[in-house]
Amino acid sequence: MKISARNTFEGTITKLTDGAVNAEVELTTAGGDKIVAIVTEGSVKSLGLAVGKKAVAFAKAPWVTLMTGEPTIRFSTRNQLSGTVKKVIKGAINTEVALELPGGTTVNAVITNEAATDLGLKEGLKAQALIKASHIILGVPA
Amino acid sequence: MKISARNTFEGTITKLTDGAVNAEVELTTAGGDKIVAIVTEGSVKSLGLAVGKKAVAFAKAPWVTLMTGEPTIRFSTRNQLSGTVKKVIKGAINTEVALELPGGTTVNAVITNEAATDLGLKEGLKAQALIKASHIILGVPA
Amino acid sequence: MKISARNTFEGTITKLTDGAVNAEVELTTAGGDKIVAIVTEGSVKSLGLAVGKKAVAFAKAPWVTLMTGEPTIRFSTRNQLSGTVKKVIKGAINTEVALELPGGTTVNAVITNEAATDLGLKEGLKAQALIKASHIILGVPA
Repeated sequence: MKISARNTFEGTITKLTDGAVNAEVELTTAGGDKIVAIVTEGSVKSLGLAVGKKAVAFAKAPWVTLMTGEPTIRFSTRNQLSGTVKKVIKGAINTEVALELPGGTTVNAVITNEAATDLGLKEGLKAQALIKASHIILGVPA
Repeated sequence: MKISARNTFEGTITKLTDGAVNAEVELTTAGGDKIVAIVTEGSVKSLGLAVGKKAVAFAKAPWVTLMTGEPTIRFSTRNQLSGTVKKVIKGAINTEVALELPGGTTVNAVITNEAATDLGLKEGLKAQALIKASHIILGVPA
Repeated sequence: MKISARNTFEGTITKLTDGAVNAEVELTTAGGDKIVAIVTEGSVKSLGLAVGKKAVAFAKAPWVTLMTGEPTIRFSTRNQLSGTVKKVIKGAINTEVALELPGGTTVNAVITNEAATDLGLKEGLKAQALIKASHIILGVPA
């Protein structure tokens, strides 16, 4: 199986909060990174999601927002991952950016060229990746 | 009226589950495809959403994740649509992919070139489109 | 601090509806524009979100859907912003569009070239930007 989503986090479910329609699921990777996902209760049931179960979190590159510099704002995004820029590829409209996290995981983002220039993105720069919990897709071994 | 979202599914609301903030709405197309959307309760009221009402579901191409090969993972995405690749257009950073569903509907995805190569996407290949319910926009006739 | 999200709305929280997992937050800008965001209750607590507090809403350009012409459909998207096309930049796959709102705010969207042609987007045309509340990132001063 191959998937087009460029961001994959493998881990174990460490927290699960139920709601009427949605549930919040926290995944902890082997390296200790935490990823929070919002999925429907329908998915919780059909996938048998529960604390202690292995799961994989996926996010597409355009769903990742990047930030550089000293944070003057605190964000609502449950997933805020600090890393170092490893690769910057510029296209006609969009730029693809690879960010390496301390634990070795790579986060891939697609942002506009304007944003890439604005943030001064280049190899070696510190940056933060923001991913909304409602943008995370969860998977469990079939 | 013209809309930039490249994915449109016309159908009838066949299920509606209310929550405190969000509601889950299931739409069934004439061809029998089912699309699940998460919208706010504010939208349920303002649009008068109810079982039996006609509605249209929209999703932008970058919100669609593609998968190929035998599924080794089960996903939380409520919308998982199997089809056949009809068109692959490669740009500098992104590739646009058109997937034809058995009922004749076309699903359009924009993925990174890296992902397109990784999945080996080409005309005639079987693939699956994953769309999160929270990414679906619902509409009703004005 | 610099952020890659191309859409920023500064304002004051004017409404907050709590749920079990998610909360709906309405922000009103100085110019009177209203932006509705869905964030987790975890974020409401950690950011101290409350009516009367200053906040900033962010959205990435690919999360914005554009519409032109007389609306024949009413949409579930809580954020529907009418404006005038100011800039259209075409790439290999995607087109970047800047929309100016009456209050002076600019909304940036990235859509496929196919969609841009379909909508007949060009400078001076009236268009509407649709942004799902669940796609909005909220921030508060650090």
